[in-house]
Amino acid sequence: MNTLPPDAPSSPVPRPIAITQGDPAGIGPEIIARLFVHQPALARGCVVVGDEGTMRRALRCVLGGELAWPVVELAHWSEWAQCPPRCLPLLCPPALADASTGWLAPWGVVDARAGRMAAQCVEHAARAGLAGEVLALVTAPLHKEAMHQAGAPYGAYPGHTELLQSLAAEHQGKPVAQVPVRMMLANDDLRVVLVSVHVSLRQAIAAVTFDNVLETLHIAHRSLSQILGREPNLAVAGLNPHAGEGGLFGSEELAVIGPAVAAARACGVEAVGPLAPDTVFMQARRVAGAPPRFDAVIAMYHDQGLIPVKYLGLDQGVNVTLGLPLIRTSPDHGTAFDIAGSGRADPSSLFAAVAMARQLAGCAV
Amino acid sequence: MNTLPPDAPSSPVPRPIAITQGDPAGIGPEIIARLFVHQPALARGCVVVGDEGTMRRALRCVLGGELAWPVVELAHWSEWAQCPPRCLPLLCPPALADASTGWLAPWGVVDARAGRMAAQCVEHAARAGLAGEVLALVTAPLHKEAMHQAGAPYGAYPGHTELLQSLAAEHQGKPVAQVPVRMMLANDDLRVVLVSVHVSLRQAIAAVTFDNVLETLHIAHRSLSQILGREPNLAVAGLNPHAGEGGLFGSEELAVIGPAVAAARACGVEAVGPLAPDTVFMQARRVAGAPPRFDAVIAMYHDQGLIPVKYLGLDQGVNVTLGLPLIRTSPDHGTAFDIAGSGRADPSSLFAAVAMARQLAGCAV
Repeated sequence: MNTLPPDAPSSPVPRPIAITQGDPAGIGPEIIARLFVHQPALARGCVVVGDEGTMRRALRCVLGGELAWPVVELAHWSEWAQCPPRCLPLLCPPALADASTGWLAPWGVVDARAGRMAAQCVEHAARAGLAGEVLALVTAPLHKEAMHQAGAPYGAYPGHTELLQSLAAEHQGKPVAQVPVRMMLANDDLRVVLVSVHVSLRQAIAAVTFDNVLETLHIAHRSLSQILGREPNLAVAGLNPHAGEGGLFGSEELAVIGPAVAAARACGVEAVGPLAPDTVFMQARRVAGAPPRFDAVIAMYHDQGLIPVKYLGLDQGVNVTLGLPLIRTSPDHGTAFDIAGSGRADPSSLFAAVAMARQLAGCAV
Repeated sequence: MNTLPPDAPSSPVPRPIAITQGDPAGIGPEIIARLFVHQPALARGCVVVGDEGTMRRALRCVLGGELAWPVVELAHWSEWAQCPPRCLPLLCPPALADASTGWLAPWGVVDARAGRMAAQCVEHAARAGLAGEVLALVTAPLHKEAMHQAGAPYGAYPGHTELLQSLAAEHQGKPVAQVPVRMMLANDDLRVVLVSVHVSLRQAIAAVTFDNVLETLHIAHRSLSQILGREPNLAVAGLNPHAGEGGLFGSEELAVIGPAVAAARACGVEAVGPLAPDTVFMQARRVAGAPPRFDAVIAMYHDQGLIPVKYLGLDQGVNVTLGLPLIRTSPDHGTAFDIAGSGRADPSSLFAAVAMARQLAGCAV
């Protein structure tokens, strides 16, 4: 392990972006290693939150026979600026350091310890984000089952979003229900914000309520206003084919979605809809040479939004959690246990997530 | 009106493709006129089923100040081959000729008479298709409300598909339920076959039954075997996010879709699934230089399939009705009453529908 010399200056430096390593048995650590090795400009100002052994193994995996990069362990976030080039700056959460005895998670295996490590990294980075010590969080993929096996307190959270929401609520002294969040998926062509995420299609229909649609519109409006530096122009998809065709194919457009759009507009949100789901994404797609008609589409359920975002390929998709009191982006893929450690994992989506975090944080670190 | 000389030879000629004019108040007639004027090779062997006044007006709309093309009215399908170049061959259904007194449907207006004319053209062409007098049908768009206003017998059919299904059942002496059909949408990148079409999303979930999914697989397998000249490789989308994630987000994959795929495979249908809906279309998309993994995707509901087909643009989308005892294709758009008569309608999808019909009919007329 390398540590910085004790006499390193501690004068104020720009705050870094925290990248959590994700499940150590998955591809998270190696795509993060690729970021530092292949995209040093993009990685500048980023600090990995994880454990040294995992990141050293990831660097070896990426570098092959080349001379391995040192992992430089930081004691404080502000030390990132002192990390020399061709080194990977790492902050190990105290809980992790206490528990870790050099154990390395076997690649591609669901393991409670690995799940726990991954969650501890997220918690540590999130607390730093909420305290204003880091500018933004980029989270590499967790494995849901491993986190579930990790037990209390992490096992109760289905994924990153719920854990972050809970930490934010605790930080703000509010009930979780008062920190509503929404998932935005974005790539170079399209942004979609989802009314619901990981529930059955049946439950997703039940979640298309006036309050949920209106809240989604408000969250999207606020967040995209920050992101774009101007008020966004939102399209709202219907739930049913042809947006219900005037009530022939379902009533939610007339009873719920239309009134929610009207209520949002009355508050100054620029939104149109409900529009036919099968053409609204095409209309919102950015095509070279023409400005898109809409800055984002509000999608009524998971696949309605994710099918068009993923249709042209997964490389550039980024997940952004809207509504949190911190900036959080993540790649649009999972742990890919089947190829972990093979060096074949495509880091493009992580690169895009880091670029998006930098943009959202307004940073030119 | 021009008619062919009475001494024209009536020797056997290849059967033509019938193109129904669609609602005369919509863009159907003018995109058909564009086909003949701009794509004579593609139009060769095609006969318009409609009325002379409507098609003359459409030709004037398309040709502007140029010398108008004559409309040549045929008495029999086989006369198409005697139609000179730079003429539009037309067959007027007797019912239409009886009722028509030179009335022209006002552009862009829902009208019972226009709806009736459109439906009569479809019926005439379909009966010719069922009798083996034409190779295939290409149908320009109907206006559902105008057809509804047309009254008995047409008003009872929500659209083309149900009317054609009913005529086919009558022709075969079967109940309509024994002529199951499915809609396939196809463009250069992707083919999708839909389990259900114009019903609410709630009803579409209810339609995801073992029998419906299995029937869709059999129809897709049979039809695509004819189209491709080999057995197709089918992907089956799930209904819920992540195809239910092992039952966490819905049970239909385990209870219904998986068993239907297994039953189809037991009958020799090459099919895999249920696969995650948000990535299956991406996997089936044809990308230059690489063969697609699947020949078609079975989609569980309207928007699941149509969002990816339409995402890259509407120009080339073609609708094919699978399961009928005749070939029927149509453009993937409606009557566009708002621009009818302006000459601005994009004929690309009709061109693609004609090309697809020619391909399905195996014709090089």
